[in-house]
Amino acid sequence: MPCHGRAMSSHSVDDGVSHERFGLRAGERAIDPPPPTDAGLVFIGRIRTPWATRSACPKRGSLDGPVCTLEIDPRWEAALTGIEAHAKLQVLYWMHEARRDLVLQNPGHAGTLVGTFALRSPVRPNPIASSVVVLEAREGVKLRVRGLDCLDGTPLVDLKPAPGEG
Amino acid sequence: MPCHGRAMSSHSVDDGVSHERFGLRAGERAIDPPPPTDAGLVFIGRIRTPWATRSACPKRGSLDGPVCTLEIDPRWEAALTGIEAHAKLQVLYWMHEARRDLVLQNPGHAGTLVGTFALRSPVRPNPIASSVVVLEAREGVKLRVRGLDCLDGTPLVDLKPAPGEG
Repeated sequence: MPCHGRAMSSHSVDDGVSHERFGLRAGERAIDPPPPTDAGLVFIGRIRTPWATRSACPKRGSLDGPVCTLEIDPRWEAALTGIEAHAKLQVLYWMHEARRDLVLQNPGHAGTLVGTFALRSPVRPNPIASSVVVLEAREGVKLRVRGLDCLDGTPLVDLKPAPGEG
Repeated sequence: MPCHGRAMSSHSVDDGVSHERFGLRAGERAIDPPPPTDAGLVFIGRIRTPWATRSACPKRGSLDGPVCTLEIDPRWEAALTGIEAHAKLQVLYWMHEARRDLVLQNPGHAGTLVGTFALRSPVRPNPIASSVVVLEAREGVKLRVRGLDCLDGTPLVDLKPAPGEG
């Protein structure tokens, strides 16, 4: 999964012309999405990674990749009780730089248009990524993990034992 | 994963007494969480399952369990293009009946207090569940799937090829 993808854009068009200047590739289609007010998220921390720009991010996280840090907001410290018992964690995070209005995407490698829900692209109505990571160490509210591919500073949404771990 | 868990409560306490009447079990701790205004979600559809109450839900979804239906809002129909190519999908959904303020939980089976992030409990700051399902069939904006354990009517947040599928 590439991290975050494309520049943010508040523009959504489906007029068949001039998409390039709004960051759309050939054939891609945007809609005018409803306001994202059905539920609200609280960020529980931030992710620290070695990658400061989207182009620097690896295409896909690797469990033997570099150590990254999940910095949990101290108000949630008690919620980490017992987390060391789990070798692998599932991390949900918010791809804050991704646009949310595309329904058809041109991922390039396939040479065809693919629906947003048939891709793990960061560009989606609710830009939530899910990654499984290896927990290397806990230091207070900081968790050292391997397996991420996201931008430094990415907001953290949730953290739980990986499926089969809990 | 049980579905949704407990009754909704807007009360959060950490006074060491009278927790039972707010739905807390022995030793559980709630905090006063910040308002969930860091990011907003748009529900992309609803999940139809055979389970109308929390007590009727299975403890954990099974890939050979009953067929459930993901009903996608028609505005996103184009985003389903090509989804039939994937045998397994990852589904993110919103556990709308779960309280969000517990940091320490007493899951009962363990007999000890466990932090919220060390559990896959529905009770968590951002009550987002992640399940992998088998795609049985697509009928327009309806996807027939197996592997869920959630309440009928559960709001759908995201849908993507399962890890390793896409």
